Amino acid sequence: MTKTVGVLGGGQLGRMMVEPANRMRIPINILDSAGAPAKQISAHDGHVDGSFKDAESIRKLAKTCDVVTVEIEHVDTKVLEEIEGTVELCPHWSTVRIIQDKYAQKDHLRSHGVATAESKSIDQATEENLKAVGASFGYPFMLKSKTEAYDGRGNFPIKSEADIPEALKQLGNRPLYAERWAEFTIELAAMVVNTKDGTYAYPTTETIHENSICKLTYTPARGVSREVAKRAEELAKKAVATFKGKGIFGVEMFLLKDNTLLVNEIAPRPHNSGHYTIEGCHVSQFEAHLRAITDEALSEDDLQLREPAAVMLNVLGGKTPDSHLKVYEAAKKSPRIRIHDYGKAEARPGRKMGHLTVTARSMGEAEALIQPLIDEVDRQAGKTVESHAPPKRQPTVAVIMGSDSDMPVLKAGFDILTKFDIPFETRITSAHRTPEWMVEYVKSAEGRGFKAIIAAAGGAAHLPGMAAALTVLPVIGIPVKASVLDGVDSLYSIVQMPRGEPVATVGINNSTNAALLAARVLSVADPSIGQKLHDYFETNEREVLEKDAKLLEMGPQAYLAQMPAKK
Amino acid sequence: MTKTVGVLGGGQLGRMMVEPANRMRIPINILDSAGAPAKQISAHDGHVDGSFKDAESIRKLAKTCDVVTVEIEHVDTKVLEEIEGTVELCPHWSTVRIIQDKYAQKDHLRSHGVATAESKSIDQATEENLKAVGASFGYPFMLKSKTEAYDGRGNFPIKSEADIPEALKQLGNRPLYAERWAEFTIELAAMVVNTKDGTYAYPTTETIHENSICKLTYTPARGVSREVAKRAEELAKKAVATFKGKGIFGVEMFLLKDNTLLVNEIAPRPHNSGHYTIEGCHVSQFEAHLRAITDEALSEDDLQLREPAAVMLNVLGGKTPDSHLKVYEAAKKSPRIRIHDYGKAEARPGRKMGHLTVTARSMGEAEALIQPLIDEVDRQAGKTVESHAPPKRQPTVAVIMGSDSDMPVLKAGFDILTKFDIPFETRITSAHRTPEWMVEYVKSAEGRGFKAIIAAAGGAAHLPGMAAALTVLPVIGIPVKASVLDGVDSLYSIVQMPRGEPVATVGINNSTNAALLAARVLSVADPSIGQKLHDYFETNEREVLEKDAKLLEMGPQAYLAQMPAKK
Repeated sequence: MTKTVGVLGGGQLGRMMVEPANRMRIPINILDSAGAPAKQISAHDGHVDGSFKDAESIRKLAKTCDVVTVEIEHVDTKVLEEIEGTVELCPHWSTVRIIQDKYAQKDHLRSHGVATAESKSIDQATEENLKAVGASFGYPFMLKSKTEAYDGRGNFPIKSEADIPEALKQLGNRPLYAERWAEFTIELAAMVVNTKDGTYAYPTTETIHENSICKLTYTPARGVSREVAKRAEELAKKAVATFKGKGIFGVEMFLLKDNTLLVNEIAPRPHNSGHYTIEGCHVSQFEAHLRAITDEALSEDDLQLREPAAVMLNVLGGKTPDSHLKVYEAAKKSPRIRIHDYGKAEARPGRKMGHLTVTARSMGEAEALIQPLIDEVDRQAGKTVESHAPPKRQPTVAVIMGSDSDMPVLKAGFDILTKFDIPFETRITSAHRTPEWMVEYVKSAEGRGFKAIIAAAGGAAHLPGMAAALTVLPVIGIPVKASVLDGVDSLYSIVQMPRGEPVATVGINNSTNAALLAARVLSVADPSIGQKLHDYFETNEREVLEKDAKLLEMGPQAYLAQMPAKK
Repeated sequence: MTKTVGVLGGGQLGRMMVEPANRMRIPINILDSAGAPAKQISAHDGHVDGSFKDAESIRKLAKTCDVVTVEIEHVDTKVLEEIEGTVELCPHWSTVRIIQDKYAQKDHLRSHGVATAESKSIDQATEENLKAVGASFGYPFMLKSKTEAYDGRGNFPIKSEADIPEALKQLGNRPLYAERWAEFTIELAAMVVNTKDGTYAYPTTETIHENSICKLTYTPARGVSREVAKRAEELAKKAVATFKGKGIFGVEMFLLKDNTLLVNEIAPRPHNSGHYTIEGCHVSQFEAHLRAITDEALSEDDLQLREPAAVMLNVLGGKTPDSHLKVYEAAKKSPRIRIHDYGKAEARPGRKMGHLTVTARSMGEAEALIQPLIDEVDRQAGKTVESHAPPKRQPTVAVIMGSDSDMPVLKAGFDILTKFDIPFETRITSAHRTPEWMVEYVKSAEGRGFKAIIAAAGGAAHLPGMAAALTVLPVIGIPVKASVLDGVDSLYSIVQMPRGEPVATVGINNSTNAALLAARVLSVADPSIGQKLHDYFETNEREVLEKDAKLLEMGPQAYLAQMPAKK
């Protein structure tokens, strides 16, 4: 029997939970004021009008459902504790209680062996105590409110002793803790879901914050190796598995300069960094949450990306009350942008009004599609947006050569890639003269979004084979005819790779075929390139047939006479 | 300013229009009875309670909106004609009027040069007149009601003269026409949208009907060449462009045995054959419709498939009132199935209660994912479902060879493909002994869902190059060492292809590398294969490092002594 779900809070997260509930016939009752975003798209009499902060309303909601969940963690856990037993709690009240208090949260993670920034409780908010923290942690360090802190509110970075009085003025009357400064290179996040069968993670996402509010997410995280992304997912899973109760959690992490990962903060609910999952994955974070808390099946396969890249852009209230509407207008004019408005009546600067998502066959394509909307969001926030050139497309093919003397041979291939509108990058990386640069370049190619490598080399011609040994991308090798042996030396060196690391070898000096082969490889993921290959075939066929008709008409002697003299 | 949309009818099509309207903040008012499926997910006071067949209610709805659209074509076009001018009509009343009358529809299409089955109006429904049709069209032919016909109701196939009395009994009191029997090999459909900027088509879909009701759709259509699919899209666009008014149209077509296409029927609204677009494409048919009728931008790119394959399965009312719920229960247990329930209160056998969609990286994968649900739907319809073996996965790699003498060389490659869980097909297609079979096989490979071809050949070794000349799929060539020249003959013949048709050549007899190269190529579209390649790399690296450690430990003499003697 399908369980009835009760949700504390009917804002955008509740609303996006209602979407799959509508589709899947999951009964869902929302506790929030009448006309709240979640209620706008769910017309029935099971909802409860009231505040998710009001004990009596929570008790009333609990009577209508089998499972109680939250779209916000700032709820009264004593009431949750009280209703335990009459309904199932997802997350459990103890989880909400730990997570509500950020210091308790960190303490809990540390005690379970989950890496997180070093922190200290400040039991009395005095200058003396903060100076002692500065002496121990060094400057800068973060002063944070333990409770009711979100979107940057309740945090104060103390850059030097001189900041301490202002910090105390702003936060002195709140329960505080200090945190060692995390010198991170990138902020990551992963959505994780506790189910009856296990704990599963969505892919690692890169989050970009502005004024401490999430602005953009990129999935998969850009410039992060597969290994780090996997490690982040494992860390996020480890952290979430320590908490009681089924359902989705958002895990925010820092990647430090030394490549270690720290958990920054956990939310026991759907999270802004997982909004991309609605279009990006087979099952969205909202549906995954509903499935998990109603004990339905969920598989790791459900959480995979459907396309290679997804970008999410938040739409906040801007400088005028209709700023967000202007962003939507721009979004409607842009191809492939999905608009998610939250149905909020009133826009305030910085309020989350909606978000936009785009998915694409490559991160470069996604970046190009979202850029005009980032500009519009910035304009609506009152920023000056420089009119910039159309964003550079992420190249999908890397063309590498051992020496610039290979350039003339490669030219025909460049022409083909250009004709097929395949963006490519060209670099000189000699296997013998720059072995370390070659290793670095080829090893990073997959993470940088390349889909294939074309490598040209002559003579001993080690570059293509070495590239194939350093990446799992398809490597296409062009044997270049050097000064002796007519290129056969290069051909043998490239094609005769040992078992394990294949090079897709083309004919000697035949960069045209190398580029066409790259196009064929890319067409496996991109049907538009397949279409161009078909068109290319047709043109070539027509040309030969036309020549044949001409030969038939002119006869061989006249035909020969009009041919250009062979050089 | 965003236009307010009014919809005649609030069933499942209206409901699926409300979904993107909610997301995009498009005001939408539904005319239907209170609690209709579309109203359940849209709580506001702009809806009109009443029947979409009632003139007064239509007038009332028109006062609330800027554009009036329909989710069903069986509406009173006189009222639409009357309100024209006060609101925009999408589709135009004249379009609805023509399409309502199936004979007028065919007549309209024919007069615009759109291929459709030959048909004759039956002005008086007498045996004599029907016999005259039989004499002219031959048997079988179709007797159809001109109006109020859908899901097979109103159609009667007349197989011989003997069927005429029964046909007249069933349909005699309706306006009738006769249609020449279309001996089709497959039923196709394409959703087409008329916008302010032009007419665009979604990809061609294969539709499977059961008892004249759509049961399944497969996109792209299986076993249909790219050329036919394109032709179907062009035909559908040509047909829709003849109708007045913006918005989406569903075009059902027949592919005949001689490969010609006929338009069967057109619906001036979202259509069951386009439900797959919700997950399958960037912009769903419902959003495309809303964008078109509110004069927002839409690009052809918006209508492309996001993944290579999408399958939709209708969930009808079954043998018991909860049959559809049982299908949903099964769907929740199956990975990656999206459930779309329509919120209908009462299930009747054959009533459309919801649908399921699955998208995948290949049609084979999609077929495998949907099969258990087709079985469940059949069970719930009261059919006996034979427990069948897990559905065969569509092979993605074709391994072809000129002679079975190449088999021993290929074995190592088969092992790799099996290890990587890549389904493959093996065939013997000699370029010289079965040239026509080779052409037929290779030309059909892309349409059959293959993503790469491995071709092995020795001596003159034409097979790989000929394959490359017959398909745009990546072709991987294995030079097989024949009795003389040590395989160099084969290598040269395969690698030295002229400009235009590349073969990705690997080392002589190195089928391992051919299979690994196929895996690298497939990994461009399938990250799970990329992960397996990384794992393979790691294993190989570890093995060599272990051997090195052993050599260091044992010293060269002892190491040599324990090595197996070289054959």
